[in-house]
Amino acid sequence: MEARRLRFVLFGDSLTQKSFDECGWGAALQSTYQRKADVCLRGYSGYNTRWALQLLAHTFPEEVVPADLTTVFFGANDANIPGLAGDHSRQHVPLGEYKDNLRVILKRVKQNEASDLPAGANNLKAVLLITPPPVDVDAWQKHCASFKDGSPDNPPNRTFEYTKQYADAAIEVGKETGTPVLDLYAHFTKLPEWKTLLCDGLHFTPEGQKEVFKAVIRAMNSEFPHLQQERVDMDFPDHKAIDEKDPASSFLPPSP
Amino acid sequence: MEARRLRFVLFGDSLTQKSFDECGWGAALQSTYQRKADVCLRGYSGYNTRWALQLLAHTFPEEVVPADLTTVFFGANDANIPGLAGDHSRQHVPLGEYKDNLRVILKRVKQNEASDLPAGANNLKAVLLITPPPVDVDAWQKHCASFKDGSPDNPPNRTFEYTKQYADAAIEVGKETGTPVLDLYAHFTKLPEWKTLLCDGLHFTPEGQKEVFKAVIRAMNSEFPHLQQERVDMDFPDHKAIDEKDPASSFLPPSP
Repeated sequence: MEARRLRFVLFGDSLTQKSFDECGWGAALQSTYQRKADVCLRGYSGYNTRWALQLLAHTFPEEVVPADLTTVFFGANDANIPGLAGDHSRQHVPLGEYKDNLRVILKRVKQNEASDLPAGANNLKAVLLITPPPVDVDAWQKHCASFKDGSPDNPPNRTFEYTKQYADAAIEVGKETGTPVLDLYAHFTKLPEWKTLLCDGLHFTPEGQKEVFKAVIRAMNSEFPHLQQERVDMDFPDHKAIDEKDPASSFLPPSP
Repeated sequence: MEARRLRFVLFGDSLTQKSFDECGWGAALQSTYQRKADVCLRGYSGYNTRWALQLLAHTFPEEVVPADLTTVFFGANDANIPGLAGDHSRQHVPLGEYKDNLRVILKRVKQNEASDLPAGANNLKAVLLITPPPVDVDAWQKHCASFKDGSPDNPPNRTFEYTKQYADAAIEVGKETGTPVLDLYAHFTKLPEWKTLLCDGLHFTPEGQKEVFKAVIRAMNSEFPHLQQERVDMDFPDHKAIDEKDPASSFLPPSP
């Protein structure tokens, strides 16, 4: 018996790149789908959607069938406030361009929808758009002040309210393109302890990672029932099902 | 700028399959090599080397260039004591066959060494053989007794001494085939607290996972200096190196 493994691609900025750090949501996804899916980490720390466009041809090549699940998780860097001194404002992307870029990314990720794959195959390609989480400005200010040229008197380069606009914009693009959205901004702000889930006001603590994982799995189970872990076959037989006397009979030959 | 990502394959039994669980050594490896390597989980819970042979054609197809690093980590199930009632003895593989199977696995994993890859390319394909860790018999007995048909009076299906023979056999095969070996059995037994690193006498606690990771990284750094994390390029430029005015100029076009 052999079932093809599913392939999940996690595409995003540092909130994705760090998803295999302690208690990381990406690692937890790989653990949950052990023997069922390969989780491919495509997180790019510091990247905004403008720079992410440069990665598309490499990361989602035209000749490759889209992943069974792709998470698209950008916005935390686009939402840097423009016009400030220092390194952050260069990451800023205006709201309209952010939405355009997300549209391009989503189109590319779903690229083969009109291709000659078996009928229905593309309906099963799941894409989950994730909004940036809220920023704890006080903690983030403190963090930034600890760097070279940092000072607690510098104006904040990210704020709770400014990032909210990017979360809302992602939701709009999701609706417009028929892409399920995990509104992590809303999810976090509803938790009384949300500030404790961020280690520096922006990135996740181990507890924050666990919260992201729970939210991702809940969204997957609800939006893409065919990907529910219980419904996905393991790639090879459980060891208890292997014929002890004739192991080979429990395995089909590899596909030609 | 673009560098190909390295590819690491972790091949083994449950001690590998669970390597993305909390603080897992596989997840930590992926975290360490974020943007540098893709870590591919090929752990098969309950499998011994005899059954692992059935996976080789699928997991290491002839037409695919060997991974940049492959860990081969079997023996914990082969070392089940034969001839006992219950499900465990069926996993037993005699010591001589265990060594033969390891030889076949290592040969397959290094399969393309004589192929027409660019000169030197295969010298850089790293294979790390990992010995099974020691068994804490009291804890494992207690664990097994909690299952159906289990009883504290059943004879132990694994022992500290019996598994040692398999660890020693793996070391022999490593020497004979010129494959670097991480002797996890010796590593653990040297730690006064080693029993606390196993959650059921056999599998790793989160602290045990961290210890395995430290040992794997130390072995990699020593045996395969070209894979040292600091020496591997990121796949795309650091965000700080992207030309703000002309982002495309910071990225080479994808390979044809």
